[in-house]
Amino acid sequence: MQIRASPLLITAPVSNLQKSQFISLGFKASRAASMAATPELSSEAFKDGWFTEKSTMWPGQGLSIQYDVILYNARSDFQHVVVMSTKAYGKVLLLDGVIQATERDEHSYQEMIAHLPMAALETPATRVLVVGGGDGGVLRELSRYPGVKEIHMAEIDKMVPEVSKKFLPQMSVGFQDPRVQLHICDGIKYVQDAEEGSFDVIIVDSSDPVGPAEVLFEEPFFRALHCAVKPGGIVCTQAESIWFHLPIIESLAGMCGRIFEGGSVSYAYTTIPTYPSGQIGFMLCCKARPTQGPGSGEAPVDPRVARQTPGNVIPPLGVKELQYYDANVHSSAFVIPKFAKDAIGKHLTFQGK
Amino acid sequence: MQIRASPLLITAPVSNLQKSQFISLGFKASRAASMAATPELSSEAFKDGWFTEKSTMWPGQGLSIQYDVILYNARSDFQHVVVMSTKAYGKVLLLDGVIQATERDEHSYQEMIAHLPMAALETPATRVLVVGGGDGGVLRELSRYPGVKEIHMAEIDKMVPEVSKKFLPQMSVGFQDPRVQLHICDGIKYVQDAEEGSFDVIIVDSSDPVGPAEVLFEEPFFRALHCAVKPGGIVCTQAESIWFHLPIIESLAGMCGRIFEGGSVSYAYTTIPTYPSGQIGFMLCCKARPTQGPGSGEAPVDPRVARQTPGNVIPPLGVKELQYYDANVHSSAFVIPKFAKDAIGKHLTFQGK
Repeated sequence: MQIRASPLLITAPVSNLQKSQFISLGFKASRAASMAATPELSSEAFKDGWFTEKSTMWPGQGLSIQYDVILYNARSDFQHVVVMSTKAYGKVLLLDGVIQATERDEHSYQEMIAHLPMAALETPATRVLVVGGGDGGVLRELSRYPGVKEIHMAEIDKMVPEVSKKFLPQMSVGFQDPRVQLHICDGIKYVQDAEEGSFDVIIVDSSDPVGPAEVLFEEPFFRALHCAVKPGGIVCTQAESIWFHLPIIESLAGMCGRIFEGGSVSYAYTTIPTYPSGQIGFMLCCKARPTQGPGSGEAPVDPRVARQTPGNVIPPLGVKELQYYDANVHSSAFVIPKFAKDAIGKHLTFQGK
Repeated sequence: MQIRASPLLITAPVSNLQKSQFISLGFKASRAASMAATPELSSEAFKDGWFTEKSTMWPGQGLSIQYDVILYNARSDFQHVVVMSTKAYGKVLLLDGVIQATERDEHSYQEMIAHLPMAALETPATRVLVVGGGDGGVLRELSRYPGVKEIHMAEIDKMVPEVSKKFLPQMSVGFQDPRVQLHICDGIKYVQDAEEGSFDVIIVDSSDPVGPAEVLFEEPFFRALHCAVKPGGIVCTQAESIWFHLPIIESLAGMCGRIFEGGSVSYAYTTIPTYPSGQIGFMLCCKARPTQGPGSGEAPVDPRVARQTPGNVIPPLGVKELQYYDANVHSSAFVIPKFAKDAIGKHLTFQGK
């Protein structure tokens, strides 16, 4: 059942992926390696029919899930790709030993990372970019907006969409939208090369900022995102868990505030049982509109308000109804616990009081 | 380091405890058993320096936590009590192999189960009951209200307060409040014997409704709670996770609606990494006021509004500042995802639309 990846040309700094992104940038695997035999499953992670998700990002703990069968196990040019079937969560996609999506709870993450920026826009989006997201779940959510003309995805690892289409139909249904254009390429380079102000929304499923993936949380990438998004548009990036990673989030929020000067920076979260701590956050950066800026007096976009409404069911595309998101969930996602507000509120445009 | 429990007189149906409550009612242990040697730690749960929390309530999964030392390991008359020290969560209290509280994240649960009902009251509370809660964390939160005259705790297992005082000072500080009266007794019987309408708030840290603890989710106990709370007062009970236990929650909400007729029934939740799914919910039942009832036209108490304000720091009692709760967190805790609203909204007074 193994799908083998063709080697891809890697032109950018490389990184491992951890969380819900498949932009990766992996290690430079040789053609020989990519064609190697089925990789061994680490006996540390897979033992006695149980998988345990351990990482230096959440030391000393990890979710354990009992699995029935390993449906897929291969090494792409970028990462180790595993699909396992489980009783508790249905089929589960792992990249380099970290849970990316499960059939049971993926809707929470995919709906929130897509609809928080899309619904907050003052003017409906027409052109959207997803960096990573190769399972297709975010595409499925974007397809709920009839006003969107183009949905671009920059995904470096072609094995991920292939595996998703084979094993995860409820997510890969997103690829059926005729407005989707899949670019197998380095996501950072794609953003750097994009025309200035050419996207209403950019969604980044970034990896955790340790090791080589650190670049995805650094200034050059965020400056490129700021350039590529329209004035009044929104960049929404995966932004870790307030329970585990407050210092990272604080640093990220501070940087976003400097880069999106005159616009707004906000933090929201969603609950999801299979991500570490049971939740994950998003940084929403709204680019200043031309009439804005220091002294202009016009308020920046406040993303806590849902102004647009995603369609619930899209029968022609096979897209089923929303499971997590509605306008009330949208606004309450920005209400963070006191300990988090105390730590990062000073960098947030609307959430510091 | 073992503290041995004296045998207690058990006069009521018994049950095991699972979640953040110590009301339990355990199996009928003999005096000989309670004085037995240090119990063995199950090799299924404790292996290679890691503890994994498995239960039939969340089959096929479990949080794994690396531990340094088992600080305490004893069997009381009611349950197996373990305290372990961990790098990720500090000291962790386990009852019958289920995580009850960790030093790192207990504030979320304790603050929310206490302040959601206390702050929602139209008139400040003067007399409050906690059923279970032997670690003292809920008492610590109740001590933030200067208007409270009496805080009663009905806790069946005296080993839990003893162990908390020895190992968990940030929680057991709650016992230092001179308004606290600790009753070592069966919590169900205590509620049944209470004078009608004698408490402004009753907080129940109930166990999961499987096996003997089922009675804590059944009608006789809830009828007793309804009787014991004042008109306009609020009963707040642990009510499982929407991610794992929607059918239980739906059934509970329906029953509460019948018993608290003319009042209101609401569901709220908090995030907490060490509880299954990373969150846990609460059912808030407000008892109808005398002027209410079918046809009276007066609206029941809406607990989504924070009307009272807990004190932040109480230096004389050694109570440190709030970490999770504020008035915004209060209101947003009642905003539940669409899939949960679809399932239980019909039983909820204000959250169904």
